[in-house]
Amino acid sequence: MQSISCSDEEKKFQVRKLEISDKSKGFIELLQQLTVCDSVSDEEFRSRFEEISSYGDNHVICVIEDGSSQKIIATGSVFIERKFIRNCSKVGHIEDVVVDSNARGMQLGKKIVEYLTDHARSVGCYKVILDCSAKNRAFYEKCGFEQKEFEMAKYFI
Amino acid sequence: MQSISCSDEEKKFQVRKLEISDKSKGFIELLQQLTVCDSVSDEEFRSRFEEISSYGDNHVICVIEDGSSQKIIATGSVFIERKFIRNCSKVGHIEDVVVDSNARGMQLGKKIVEYLTDHARSVGCYKVILDCSAKNRAFYEKCGFEQKEFEMAKYFI
Repeated sequence: MQSISCSDEEKKFQVRKLEISDKSKGFIELLQQLTVCDSVSDEEFRSRFEEISSYGDNHVICVIEDGSSQKIIATGSVFIERKFIRNCSKVGHIEDVVVDSNARGMQLGKKIVEYLTDHARSVGCYKVILDCSAKNRAFYEKCGFEQKEFEMAKYFI
Repeated sequence: MQSISCSDEEKKFQVRKLEISDKSKGFIELLQQLTVCDSVSDEEFRSRFEEISSYGDNHVICVIEDGSSQKIIATGSVFIERKFIRNCSKVGHIEDVVVDSNARGMQLGKKIVEYLTDHARSVGCYKVILDCSAKNRAFYEKCGFEQKEFEMAKYFI
């Protein structure tokens, strides 16, 4: 019976690409747990969604929907940068990974990061990178990442 | 006379966008000073150049050409990521900044970073970010950046 239960669990928390209908399933509210994220109108959402979708495999946002509540409980994104270095290679940049505070401890963050990492590998990236706070380093180390350099930022507003 | 000299200097080291002819001006050899960068065939270069050019303002590579030697002596790139956070804002990612080892001390790196930062600001980014080694932190601090988080990386090859 254990194996059936596992399979159900796997199915319940499947990672899939962001859909336009996810706005009504709490996608923006989930991002608000990560950082400053004002409410977004349906029109603004549709416009940005279509813009990002037009990049195809070059910018993927994935989500996990809780099958019971039909709420989006985890998300993350990756975009693909084309370079001249390393024989005209590519790098995947992972951004905006967040798991709902009520859904922690179920390895959903790991699933999201693995999905994004697999995507970057599948389109030919030689590495995938991300920036994280000191308190999240251990989590990413468990996901197979190692610390490299320092993130520097300049804010305009 | 000082002002005329300055103006000549400014003109001599103007920042401009990468052009297809820059391959023959040592652009790839300059990148080799930064990291692993195998030799790239003319066809590979053209193909990657056209790919990146097709992104328009969303991915800009800039260079400084030495007017005397007609060699590319500095470069850097920025690409623009579209987000849902911060009222569907954008972030500029600066990558692959390098100044020829024979052209250090002339503030060319600062010029490159300012060009890329100005571009990110002009297209509506709320911030611009980059990753750098500990030894380059002071340089980016002089450019108005501050350290934020830690870069984590996972290599596929």
